[in-house]
Amino acid sequence: MQGLMMNRPMRVNDILTFAAEVYGDVEVVSVAVEGGIHRTNYREIDVRTRQLAKALLKLGVTEGNRVATLAWNGYRHFELYYGIAGIGAVCHTINPRLSAEQMIYIVNHAEDKVIFVDLTFIPILNALQAHLPKDLIYVAMTDRAHMPQTDLPNLLCYEELVEAEDAAYEWPDFPEDTACGLCYTSGTTGNPKGALYTHRSTTMHALMAGVSLQTSLSPGKKILPVVPLFHVNAWGLPYAAPLTGASLVFPGAAMDGPSIYKLMQEEGVYSAWGVPTVWLGLLAEIKAQGGKPSGFGEVIIGGSAAPRSMVEAFENMDVSVCHAWGMTEMSPIGTVGVLNPTQDALPMKERIDLKSKQGRRVFGVDLKIVDEDGVRLPHDGEAQGELFVRGNAIVSGYFNNEEATSGALDADGWFGTGDVAKITAEGMLTITDRAKDLIKSGGEWISSIDVENMAMSHPCVANCAVIAVPHPKWDERPLLIVVAAAGADKDQAGILAHLGENLAKWQIPDEVVFVEELPMTATGKVSKLTLRQRHNDGTLAG
Amino acid sequence: MQGLMMNRPMRVNDILTFAAEVYGDVEVVSVAVEGGIHRTNYREIDVRTRQLAKALLKLGVTEGNRVATLAWNGYRHFELYYGIAGIGAVCHTINPRLSAEQMIYIVNHAEDKVIFVDLTFIPILNALQAHLPKDLIYVAMTDRAHMPQTDLPNLLCYEELVEAEDAAYEWPDFPEDTACGLCYTSGTTGNPKGALYTHRSTTMHALMAGVSLQTSLSPGKKILPVVPLFHVNAWGLPYAAPLTGASLVFPGAAMDGPSIYKLMQEEGVYSAWGVPTVWLGLLAEIKAQGGKPSGFGEVIIGGSAAPRSMVEAFENMDVSVCHAWGMTEMSPIGTVGVLNPTQDALPMKERIDLKSKQGRRVFGVDLKIVDEDGVRLPHDGEAQGELFVRGNAIVSGYFNNEEATSGALDADGWFGTGDVAKITAEGMLTITDRAKDLIKSGGEWISSIDVENMAMSHPCVANCAVIAVPHPKWDERPLLIVVAAAGADKDQAGILAHLGENLAKWQIPDEVVFVEELPMTATGKVSKLTLRQRHNDGTLAG
Repeated sequence: MQGLMMNRPMRVNDILTFAAEVYGDVEVVSVAVEGGIHRTNYREIDVRTRQLAKALLKLGVTEGNRVATLAWNGYRHFELYYGIAGIGAVCHTINPRLSAEQMIYIVNHAEDKVIFVDLTFIPILNALQAHLPKDLIYVAMTDRAHMPQTDLPNLLCYEELVEAEDAAYEWPDFPEDTACGLCYTSGTTGNPKGALYTHRSTTMHALMAGVSLQTSLSPGKKILPVVPLFHVNAWGLPYAAPLTGASLVFPGAAMDGPSIYKLMQEEGVYSAWGVPTVWLGLLAEIKAQGGKPSGFGEVIIGGSAAPRSMVEAFENMDVSVCHAWGMTEMSPIGTVGVLNPTQDALPMKERIDLKSKQGRRVFGVDLKIVDEDGVRLPHDGEAQGELFVRGNAIVSGYFNNEEATSGALDADGWFGTGDVAKITAEGMLTITDRAKDLIKSGGEWISSIDVENMAMSHPCVANCAVIAVPHPKWDERPLLIVVAAAGADKDQAGILAHLGENLAKWQIPDEVVFVEELPMTATGKVSKLTLRQRHNDGTLAG
Repeated sequence: MQGLMMNRPMRVNDILTFAAEVYGDVEVVSVAVEGGIHRTNYREIDVRTRQLAKALLKLGVTEGNRVATLAWNGYRHFELYYGIAGIGAVCHTINPRLSAEQMIYIVNHAEDKVIFVDLTFIPILNALQAHLPKDLIYVAMTDRAHMPQTDLPNLLCYEELVEAEDAAYEWPDFPEDTACGLCYTSGTTGNPKGALYTHRSTTMHALMAGVSLQTSLSPGKKILPVVPLFHVNAWGLPYAAPLTGASLVFPGAAMDGPSIYKLMQEEGVYSAWGVPTVWLGLLAEIKAQGGKPSGFGEVIIGGSAAPRSMVEAFENMDVSVCHAWGMTEMSPIGTVGVLNPTQDALPMKERIDLKSKQGRRVFGVDLKIVDEDGVRLPHDGEAQGELFVRGNAIVSGYFNNEEATSGALDADGWFGTGDVAKITAEGMLTITDRAKDLIKSGGEWISSIDVENMAMSHPCVANCAVIAVPHPKWDERPLLIVVAAAGADKDQAGILAHLGENLAKWQIPDEVVFVEELPMTATGKVSKLTLRQRHNDGTLAG
C-alpha cells in the first residue's frame, strides 16, 4: 500500500541553501592560487553561487550540459560544484594529473561546453587546446587583475562573470535522478570511464557521511580536505560539510608536509582528509617540528590502504585515525573505520589492529564477497573473495560507455569493485588486494598489501610497493620495491629478515629493489601498472 | 539529463539490519511491564524481529494490512515497529490515552487486522471489544507465564509466536513509497486523522535527525525516550537511534519524576526526550534529591513550548536544552534548538533566550510563513503568519479521509501547520501560538504562549494556561488559569503585577483563576478546548 507523504525531489543545492541559513557564519577558508588566504562563509557562497548560476545561463549552459573544472581545492571550485549542478547542468571535475592524452579524451568524451581553470593549469590547456572542442568556452578562475597572458581564445574572467549578476535566482526543480556531477576514473588501463552522479545519490551520500563521520562532520569543526575537489568529490566533503555545519579549510596547491602543517596550525584544523602519501609528508614535518599542529585530532585516510605504522604514528600523538575505503564509482565512501563502542573499549594494540582494517560499511552501502563462480561467501573473517557493493550512491553504469556499462554490474545488480576482501561477522572489511595486484605463487595467493604493510614497519623503508614478477617455477613471485628513508642504509638483508619474522616463508620476496621514488597515478596512488612494466623481467629496468 | 546511479528503494528495516551488524552490542534496555529491567541489544532484536515477521505472515498478515499496537515504550513495541513494516504491512500505533470513542473510531477506520497489547491495556480492550472488528486478532505482549485472565477471544501470546519461528527470513523489496506506519492525530475537534508514513519518509527522517541531533544520536550514547512509541514514532528514535548506534532506555509505564530519575541514574542516561510536563516532574525530583542523575547531559523538549524557566533550570544544572518543534504530520521533527557555533559563543542569558525559541529547521524541512491571503511574509523576526512546511517526511494527505486531505495542502503543495510563527533571518523559529489559541482583543493579537511563559516565571505558579474568553467591549480577553505551586499562596495580585512588569497593559489578563490541575490531551498537552468549554462565560465553571 502506498503511503501518503510528500515526495520532494532531492537537490544538492538544498544543502547549500540550508547551510547559508542555519550555518551562515561558518567559514570557508582557502589558500588562494593568487597568494594569501581567502576567507568567506556559507552565506556569502550561497549568494555568489546564485550569481554564478545566472552567469552560466548567460553563457548558454542548459540542463544536462557538462561544465568542466580544472582546479585546486578552493572556494571558487566549491562554488562551481553548486552553481553548475543547481541549474541542472553537470559539474565535470578533471584531474590535472592525468596525461595529456587522457585529458583530451575526457574533455571530448564529456563534450564539455565550458571549462573553468585555475591559473596554475592555464599552460596545460594552452598545450592541449588544438585537440579540445572548437566551441569550448574558457574561464580563468581569478579576478581581472590576475588574468594571464595566454593563447586561449576569448578567455573569460570568473570574478567578472559573477559580479555582473545579482543573486535573485531560485534553484529550479527537476527529477532527483538528474545528473549533477561527472568524474572519470583514472583507469590505468584503457580509457577513463565516467561516473555520473545524481542529485539523489549525492544528497544521500552526504546524509550517509553525516551520520557516519560525526566526529569530523559537526557544526563548526574545521576540516582540511587534502583529498581533491578535482577527484571523487573530495570524498563528499563539499556536500557533507555544509550539511552538518562543518568548516572547510582548502589547501589550494600547497600539499607538501610543511605547507599542510603551517595551514593546520594557523587555522586550528581538527580533521584532515587525504591519501597516505600526503600523511607521510605531514608526519615527517611533525617530527621536524617536534609536535603536531595544535587542535589536530583526527585524520581520515583513504585512497589506498594506510600501513599499520602510519596508524600507530598518528594514534600515538593522540590523533584518531579513521581508515576509510571507497571508489569513484561509490561517490566514494563505502566503509569507515569509526570504532563502535565495544571496539572503542579495547586496549590500544587491538584498537590499532582494527583501525588498520578498512572499517565497517556506512548505512546505505551493502557489501558481499563472492567466489570465482559468483557464489556468496560467508562474512567470517576468513573467506576472501571479490567484493561487490550495492546502494543509492553507487553507479549503475558509465557515461556514454556501453561496453564498460555492460560489465559493471552482476546479474543481481551489484557493482564489482575489483577488490579482493574479507569481512568479519561484525562487519569489519579488510581489502586483501586489488584483484589484479594479487600475486599467485606456487598455487598460493599472496597479498601485495600485506607484504607492503609489513615492510613499511621497518625503519629504513620510507615507502614501498610489492608487485608480481614472472617466475619459471612458481609462476609469479613478489618483488619488493623500496624507497629508502632519508639517510638510512639500503639494508636488503635487514628488511627481508624483518619480513621473515612476520610472514610465511613463501610470502617473502626473493629480492628488494631500491628506487629514488615510486611512480604515482593521477590520484596519488602508487602506479603498479608502471612498476610491472618496468620490472617485467624481475630486474630493475628504470 | 538522467544520471547513472543505482536507485535502491529505501526500506526502514535496512536500518535495523545495519545496526545489528555495525552496532550489534549496543543495548536496548526496558522497564518491563511484568516488572524488573529487561536487557537486549540490536543484534538480538534483529533476530527476534525476523522471527516476529514470520509469525505475522502465519497469522495471515499481508502487505498493506494494518497491525495495531497499544503499548508502552519497551523492546517488544520496538520489535513490532520493524517486524510489521519489514513485511510491507503498516504499524499502527494507538495512543492509550485516547477516549474510548476515539479508540473505537480509529481501530475501525484503520481496519486493523491484528492488535498487539501490553498487559496494562488488556482491560481497555476488554471494555471496547464489542465495538471492534469481529475478526480482529488479539496478541498479549508477554510470555506464557504472564498471560492474563481475560474475555478477549483467542488471546495469543507474543513470546510463543516469536519462539515458534526461526530467524531465516530476508526482508522483501517493495517501492520506497510503501506505507510502513500509521499514526492518528489526537484531534481535539472532529475525528482523529491518520498520517500514513512511508519507508522513504521514515528513512529520510532518521537521516535528517541523525545529522541534526548528533550530541544525542551517536554511537553508544544512552537515550531515554519518554516520548511514547505509541505516538509520532517517539520522535523518530526507533529509527534514528539504531541508525547512529545510540542506545535506547525505555521507561515502560513509569514516567513520574522519581521513576524517571531512578532509571536515568541507574542506567547512566545522557539524553532524555519528552514533553514539558514530564520535565516538571523530573525537575521536582532533582530538587528533592539535591542534584541531577549523574551522566545526564541533554534534554530534548518538544510537544509543547517549554517555558523559559524550565530551560533555565536545566541549563543551570549543566543539562543542555534542545527545544524541538514538529507535528504528527511531520514524522515529526521540524526544527531543533541546537545552537550553531556563532550562537553557542554567546553569553548564557542570550543562549537561553535562543533556546527558548523553537530552533532552526532541520535539513529536509522547508518553512514559510504567510499572511491571511497566503502571501509569503519575510523571515525578519518581526512578521508573523501561519506556518507552512514542505519536505520528504511531511504528509501529503490523510489515510482514507478525502475531506481532511483536500484541505491539508495549499496550492503550492505546502502543509498548513495551524501554528502562527515568526522566523528570523538566521532561521530561528518562534511559534507565537496555535492559530486557534490566539486571542484577539480590541483588534490586537495576544499570544497565549507569551503570557503563559511570563506567568510560569512567577514562583507561585506551578503550571498555567491562557485562553480567550468572550468580552462585550474588547471582543476577547485573555483569562489566566493557574495551578499554584505546592504550599504557595494563590497570589492573584502578585502574578498580575509580575506580568505588568513585562507585558503591554492590554496583554495582561483581567483575572486569574486557580485550579487544582489542568485538563490534558492524550498527547500530554494542556487541552485548551476543554478549558474554553469550561470558561466560556469568563468564570470558573469546573
